[in-house]
Amino acid sequence: MPESPIRKLVPYAEAAKARGIHVYHLNIGQPDIKTPQLALDAVKNNTIEVLAYSRTEGSEQYRLKIAAYYAKLGIELQANEILVTTGGSEALSFAMGTIADFGDEIIIPEPFYANYNGFATAMGVTVVPIVSKIENNFALPPIESFEALIGPKTRAILICNPGNPTGYLYSQEEIEKLVKLVKKHDIFLIADEVYREFTYDGSTHHSILNYPEIQKQALLVDSVSKRYSMCGARIGCLVSRNQEVIQTALKFAQARLSPPTYAQIASEAALDTPQSYFDEVKEEYVERRDLLIEELEKIKGIKVARPRGAFYCIAELPVADADDFAQWLLESFEYNGETVMVAPAAGFYASSGLGKNQIRIAYVLEKESLKKAVQILREGLIKYQAQ
Amino acid sequence: MPESPIRKLVPYAEAAKARGIHVYHLNIGQPDIKTPQLALDAVKNNTIEVLAYSRTEGSEQYRLKIAAYYAKLGIELQANEILVTTGGSEALSFAMGTIADFGDEIIIPEPFYANYNGFATAMGVTVVPIVSKIENNFALPPIESFEALIGPKTRAILICNPGNPTGYLYSQEEIEKLVKLVKKHDIFLIADEVYREFTYDGSTHHSILNYPEIQKQALLVDSVSKRYSMCGARIGCLVSRNQEVIQTALKFAQARLSPPTYAQIASEAALDTPQSYFDEVKEEYVERRDLLIEELEKIKGIKVARPRGAFYCIAELPVADADDFAQWLLESFEYNGETVMVAPAAGFYASSGLGKNQIRIAYVLEKESLKKAVQILREGLIKYQAQ
Repeated sequence: MPESPIRKLVPYAEAAKARGIHVYHLNIGQPDIKTPQLALDAVKNNTIEVLAYSRTEGSEQYRLKIAAYYAKLGIELQANEILVTTGGSEALSFAMGTIADFGDEIIIPEPFYANYNGFATAMGVTVVPIVSKIENNFALPPIESFEALIGPKTRAILICNPGNPTGYLYSQEEIEKLVKLVKKHDIFLIADEVYREFTYDGSTHHSILNYPEIQKQALLVDSVSKRYSMCGARIGCLVSRNQEVIQTALKFAQARLSPPTYAQIASEAALDTPQSYFDEVKEEYVERRDLLIEELEKIKGIKVARPRGAFYCIAELPVADADDFAQWLLESFEYNGETVMVAPAAGFYASSGLGKNQIRIAYVLEKESLKKAVQILREGLIKYQAQ
Repeated sequence: MPESPIRKLVPYAEAAKARGIHVYHLNIGQPDIKTPQLALDAVKNNTIEVLAYSRTEGSEQYRLKIAAYYAKLGIELQANEILVTTGGSEALSFAMGTIADFGDEIIIPEPFYANYNGFATAMGVTVVPIVSKIENNFALPPIESFEALIGPKTRAILICNPGNPTGYLYSQEEIEKLVKLVKKHDIFLIADEVYREFTYDGSTHHSILNYPEIQKQALLVDSVSKRYSMCGARIGCLVSRNQEVIQTALKFAQARLSPPTYAQIASEAALDTPQSYFDEVKEEYVERRDLLIEELEKIKGIKVARPRGAFYCIAELPVADADDFAQWLLESFEYNGETVMVAPAAGFYASSGLGKNQIRIAYVLEKESLKKAVQILREGLIKYQAQ
C-alpha cells in the first residue's frame, strides 16, 4: 500500500506542536464550516433503542431522498440506482472492485486524489496516469493522449470534478469528449463529483449522469463529507444506471453488512439543508480563494493554478523539492511562534518525478488565518531559499 | 463476489410479508437486546458542531479505553497496537489485505462466517477450507489436517471463537494446538473473537492474544456490534502486537480516512457498560439456547450441535436440500399466518456439497417468539416431508 502524501508529515507537525508552535493546516480537506444544524439535531433527537444494522444499500427512504436531490440537479434516478456507502471512499473502492479484476487498468489524469492509489492497490487495479499541467490550470489532457493509453486491460477512466487536488472544473466540452471516448472504446467512466456544489465564478458543473448515451458506463461517486461539512459521518453513495454494476457492488456491500446508522440519520436530515447554507458557504470559499490567490501571487517565483471549484489549489514553488520544504517548515522554521503545514504535491502524481516543486493548499481556514498562513509560507520560502 | 447465503432468501421473505404473513427471523445475527443506555445517551448528548474526520486509527482516548477493556481480560496492550475500524468487517478486510498478496491462501475451518469469503474475494485471497463436523459439535479439525493444507502460499489460519455459525467455543487445548502450529510454520493466526463475552455453562474463552510465543503472528478481530447490541454503529478494531502488521493495516485505513465519528462516541461510552448488563444478557441467551435446543430436539430426525458460545446453532434437518426447504417455508408455507426464515448452511461451507441438509439458527428472538418459531419449523418440516 502506498503511503498518503499528507500522512508522512504528521509526525513533524505533532513534534512542532509539542514545541509549542502553532501550526496552520493547509494540508487537509477538513473544512471548518459548521455542519447544518438540522443534521446535528436529527442525531441528537434520535429515538434508537437497539442500534441495529441498517439495510446494506441504505434505507429506501434515504435513497428516495437522495434521488430527489439529484432530480433537482436535473438527474432522474431510481432508488435502486443508488447504493449508500461508508463515505465516498467506499464508493470508490466498490467502483474499482466492481468493474476491474486483478491487473486491470484505470486511467486517471494526474495529479489526482492520492487515496485513489490506495483503493487501486487494495483492489489489485493498476493506475495508469495521464498528466495534466499547471500551465493550463490542469485542464483535461488532450483526448489523443487518453486514446494512446487505452489497451485491452483498460476498464475505465476516472475523473474528479471539480478536482481534488487541482480545483479544476471540467467544461461541458471536456466532459463531452470523455463521454465520446468511453462510448467509442466501451469502457467505464467513473466520476468523483463530491465537490459538485463548490463551483465558482458563475460556472456550471456538468455531471457524467447527464449523458444518456453512456448510461451503462457511467459510475458516480458521491459523499456528504464536503457538501454538508460532515467528513466524520462517513456516508457517500455509488450511483449507476447499470443494474449489473449496482448488483455486483451490492455484493461488496453485503460483505460489510451496512453503512453506519447514526451517520445515515444525519445524512438524510442534511438533504433538507436550505439553499441559503450553500450560498453562504460558497461565498465564503470564493472569498477565501480570492484572498489565497492574491496573497500567493505576492510571493516571488510562485506559480498558481486558479481553482474554479472545490477548495484546493496547486502552487508551484521556487524550490527543488517541495517535500523537503514542507518538512523543513514543520521541523526547522517558525515565524512568531507559528508555522504552516502544506501537502507536497508529488504524492498526487503517479508518474515519479512529477510535481516535485508543487504543493497542494486546502483553503479550509477562515480568511484571517489563511492570510497569516500564506504570509508564513512566504517568510518560510525566503529563509529556505537563503540557506 | 460470492453472494451471502442469507441474502438470497430476502426477496422471498419480503414477498411473504407482502402477503400478510408474519416472518420469524432466525436467519440473521441481529440481536433484539437493548443497546446500553449510556452508549445511546452519549450520542444524544454529543456537542459536535463540525462533524470532522476522526483520527484514522481512532482517537488516542478511545484506544486507551479499549486497552483498559483488554487489560481486564488479562491482555496487556498499548494503544498503538489497536486500530479502530469500521466494524469487525473492516478489521477482517484489513487483516487479509495486510498479510496476504493476490493468490495467497488462508485456511479456515468450515462452516464459517460467509462474509469471510467476500473479503477474501475482494482482496484476491484464496480461502482453503478445512471441514469441522456436526458429529463433534464442530470442534477443531485434527491438527494433521491443517498441516496437510499448509503450503508455500499459506499465509494464515483464521478462526472464529466462539464460532459463527457453529456456536462452538474452542478449548484451551485446541487454541494451544493452533498456536504451536502457526509458530512451527511461521504463519499468522487470525482470530475473530467478537462473541468473546457470549460463553456459556461456566466455560472460559481463550484469546489468541494470551500466547506471547506468537505475539508477532496473532491478529485479533473485534467489534462492538454483538457485545453491546450495536450492530448499526459499525465500529470494531484490529489488534496486533506486530507493529509491521499495524503499520501496513494503517495504510489501508488511511485510504478510507477515518471510522464514523458518532459511532465512536457510542462505542467509547459503551466501554463503561456495567457487568450487570452482560450478566443479564448472558442469562437471557442461555435460556434461549436451552429452550431452542429442547424444542429442536423434539423434532424427529433433527441433529443439533449444542452451542457453548455466541448465539447461533447449526441443525441438520431430515431434508435433502435445506436451501429448497428454507425457500419453501417462505414461499409456500404458513402456520396460522406465520412462518420462519432460517439461513441454509451450505453457504457457510466453502467445499461444495457440504452442509446441504443443515441450517443456521440465530437465537436472537425472545423466548416466546423463539418457541413459536421452532414449532412453525417443525410443522413446516412435517408438511414438507409429506409432499
